[in-house]
Amino acid sequence: MSFLAPILAASLLLTTVDDPSRLEPAMRRIVSAGLASRGSYDFLVELCDGCGHRLSGSPGAAKAVQWAQQTLRKVGADRVALEDVMVPKWVRGDIERATIVSPTKHDLAVLALGGSIATPRGGVEGEMIVVRDIEDLRSRASEAKGKIVLFDQKMGTIGKDGKKLGYGSVVSQRTNGAIEAAKAGAIASLIRSVGSPGGEFRLPHTGMMRYEDGVKKIPHAALSDEDASLIGRLIGTLGQRVTLNLELTCSDEGMVPSHNVIGELIGRDRPDEIVVVGGHLDSWDVGTGASDDGVGVVCSIEVIRLLKQLDLRPKRTVRCVLFMNEENGLAGGNAYAKDHEREMSRHVAAIEMDGGAFGLKGFGVTAGKGGLESLRSLFAPLTELGGCEIRSGGGGADIGPMAKFGVPMLGVDSDGDTYFKYHHTEADTVDKVDPKELARHAAALTALVYAIAEMDEPLPRTK
Amino acid sequence: MSFLAPILAASLLLTTVDDPSRLEPAMRRIVSAGLASRGSYDFLVELCDGCGHRLSGSPGAAKAVQWAQQTLRKVGADRVALEDVMVPKWVRGDIERATIVSPTKHDLAVLALGGSIATPRGGVEGEMIVVRDIEDLRSRASEAKGKIVLFDQKMGTIGKDGKKLGYGSVVSQRTNGAIEAAKAGAIASLIRSVGSPGGEFRLPHTGMMRYEDGVKKIPHAALSDEDASLIGRLIGTLGQRVTLNLELTCSDEGMVPSHNVIGELIGRDRPDEIVVVGGHLDSWDVGTGASDDGVGVVCSIEVIRLLKQLDLRPKRTVRCVLFMNEENGLAGGNAYAKDHEREMSRHVAAIEMDGGAFGLKGFGVTAGKGGLESLRSLFAPLTELGGCEIRSGGGGADIGPMAKFGVPMLGVDSDGDTYFKYHHTEADTVDKVDPKELARHAAALTALVYAIAEMDEPLPRTK
Repeated sequence: MSFLAPILAASLLLTTVDDPSRLEPAMRRIVSAGLASRGSYDFLVELCDGCGHRLSGSPGAAKAVQWAQQTLRKVGADRVALEDVMVPKWVRGDIERATIVSPTKHDLAVLALGGSIATPRGGVEGEMIVVRDIEDLRSRASEAKGKIVLFDQKMGTIGKDGKKLGYGSVVSQRTNGAIEAAKAGAIASLIRSVGSPGGEFRLPHTGMMRYEDGVKKIPHAALSDEDASLIGRLIGTLGQRVTLNLELTCSDEGMVPSHNVIGELIGRDRPDEIVVVGGHLDSWDVGTGASDDGVGVVCSIEVIRLLKQLDLRPKRTVRCVLFMNEENGLAGGNAYAKDHEREMSRHVAAIEMDGGAFGLKGFGVTAGKGGLESLRSLFAPLTELGGCEIRSGGGGADIGPMAKFGVPMLGVDSDGDTYFKYHHTEADTVDKVDPKELARHAAALTALVYAIAEMDEPLPRTK
Repeated sequence: MSFLAPILAASLLLTTVDDPSRLEPAMRRIVSAGLASRGSYDFLVELCDGCGHRLSGSPGAAKAVQWAQQTLRKVGADRVALEDVMVPKWVRGDIERATIVSPTKHDLAVLALGGSIATPRGGVEGEMIVVRDIEDLRSRASEAKGKIVLFDQKMGTIGKDGKKLGYGSVVSQRTNGAIEAAKAGAIASLIRSVGSPGGEFRLPHTGMMRYEDGVKKIPHAALSDEDASLIGRLIGTLGQRVTLNLELTCSDEGMVPSHNVIGELIGRDRPDEIVVVGGHLDSWDVGTGASDDGVGVVCSIEVIRLLKQLDLRPKRTVRCVLFMNEENGLAGGNAYAKDHEREMSRHVAAIEMDGGAFGLKGFGVTAGKGGLESLRSLFAPLTELGGCEIRSGGGGADIGPMAKFGVPMLGVDSDGDTYFKYHHTEADTVDKVDPKELARHAAALTALVYAIAEMDEPLPRTK
């Protein structure tokens, strides 16, 4: 800023209410302090290493609720609360094994998908059939009867339409594969793990799957990328019939009580208007959910910490919401929107961070007319962030249930290619997170939350 | 080659015996045919996927011996033989588990190191102490008594001397860690896996370890990179005492019979002079040893296949030797040198490929005066290989026992940074090998073997 800047800034304060220059000094302070901080990295260690994995209903999840409550108090939130939510408890068993028993014994790297039933003791055994996707299975349904189906579609490869297959297109086999395989008479189903290229280190990726009423439940699991390729070569290159034995001892233990954790910085001027910022406290039960979504949790807490540290209390209330059960049920997100339904007209924005902190790209925004442009002007001067694009289209799973109330939805955009190498695997651990990049995400997120909570006119609603 | 080349080549045949130009046309044919071939990739699939892992004494190793014998016959070797060798049989148990039981439960990714004893049923349990290396342990020996030692040195990081820590410097903790930890009174020892940076996907690397007579045997295992870091953070960042339970059920089942497999192309002029080219048939018992050393095996077989295909029978005998038990004993390499001791003066060179096929750099050569330069002139024109440097200093574990007889030693140089990401892990599988790069290695290796077997004067011996 040149020596003329203070004069300019002062004069601009007298102009239009949402002139970006009014917020710029505070946003700059946030970015500087955020980039210089390590705070959220130490929180990440406490959460992930200190609590362990945090699958809904697990001891780690319970420990994380306590940790979040204490930490929000420690950083100076004005109000900290636990909100009740019933969550599913699914427990991965002690035995999780997929073995090619013929033509050559190979022990495969496998993870049951979340929600799968167990196999009988000793496993389910059958000949393998490899299909590309659900469509391919439907066209070859008669071949699948009595067999174990492998859905073999690789994220990042080129699909039939000539486009790269993204998470969204490949994940349908994970979500619905067991239903479709059962309809074709298969005895079990497997998928090539959903993960981005470059992460092929014999690492299966778990994730949510579902069953359908009236369709037989069959076990459903994910193989490592390598093992899917192996089965393909045994059948394709070597021309062999492949027999596989799959044993899973996972179990559904019903619904158990848990909590969303909330911490607020009460608005100085319009305390009943609320900006939600959050991530999810739960994780899968492999790795420690550092990137999914430890980083979202600690950056959301860091928003409160940084604003307190800088003594910046915006007009509106900033509400950090740490959701429970995003991974396998979305009970926390649904409960929040339902329990706070009467407040929804006063929710001026909901911001979710659940895409890792591997390389900040910026924010996606779904708001009414002019909202995108306002945020773009506010972020344009923050070059210290090293790039932070505001693009159209934002949201997230946990804040999704608020969309129908017209609440503007925002999501943090980060490098997805790296994120999906570790996503839902044993390798989603703290070491993958770069403290500087984490600080950059927290700084940008805090600046965003501050801006939305401080703007004279709230972001235009979507309806 | 210009239109004058045939005339030049013909005239050069009349000049000095080892003029590189005499061998050039055949070497060029080899490289062209080799680069155009896929043969050795299909062999790799048969060996690795068809036989499975090939740890000495395992069913996969026995299957690989049969496969190698048949394949050498199929490619047209003049003589195929199995040579007896007794090898150790060490069996990884069904249970292999390392769990942090306090302060927070974490299941770690662990592999027993080859040769380790088992723990008692239920595991050995104790407080962790983290040391950098053996030297550090010695200086803190009194702290280690009754504890579980973690040697935490990361390959690829910068050591005390300011140099990058290579495999050779880090591996000493794997090899000798249990001896040193036992001397300090530890009840078990662990290492941070030996692997190059970029392979951190919760993947432990196994490998050979040893005990010393008169020193108590304690269990010794490798943790994934992430788990070593986790223990460091729990102790360092969170200031906790860490208690770990380690359970291993591996067992030493003594010595069992096995074989080196040999296939020859008998020399047309000096059949009693021998060029050995080889790799090792055995692998570790995780993954399928595609890069360690499936690629060395199939490229060595490809030497015979390509020479037969091109009807190039060199002066000297080319002997493909597929060694058994490189990984945990070197019984095959030792047996070969011993059993063929009387032939050693007629071994004109021994070439080993055991460093993967991730990016051909060239060959390392240990020979008498002038040997290096001869090979350099021979390879200089082969630009089609896209780079193949001949550097000083070559050898290999299996051919090592021949060095004392003065046999020139050569090794294939390939990209080690990639190789050591997968080395001795579940991820050492066929999919990592690029068929084109494999063909490049086979082409270069065949050209090298041909040249050494065809030169008028053999490579100068080292003594």
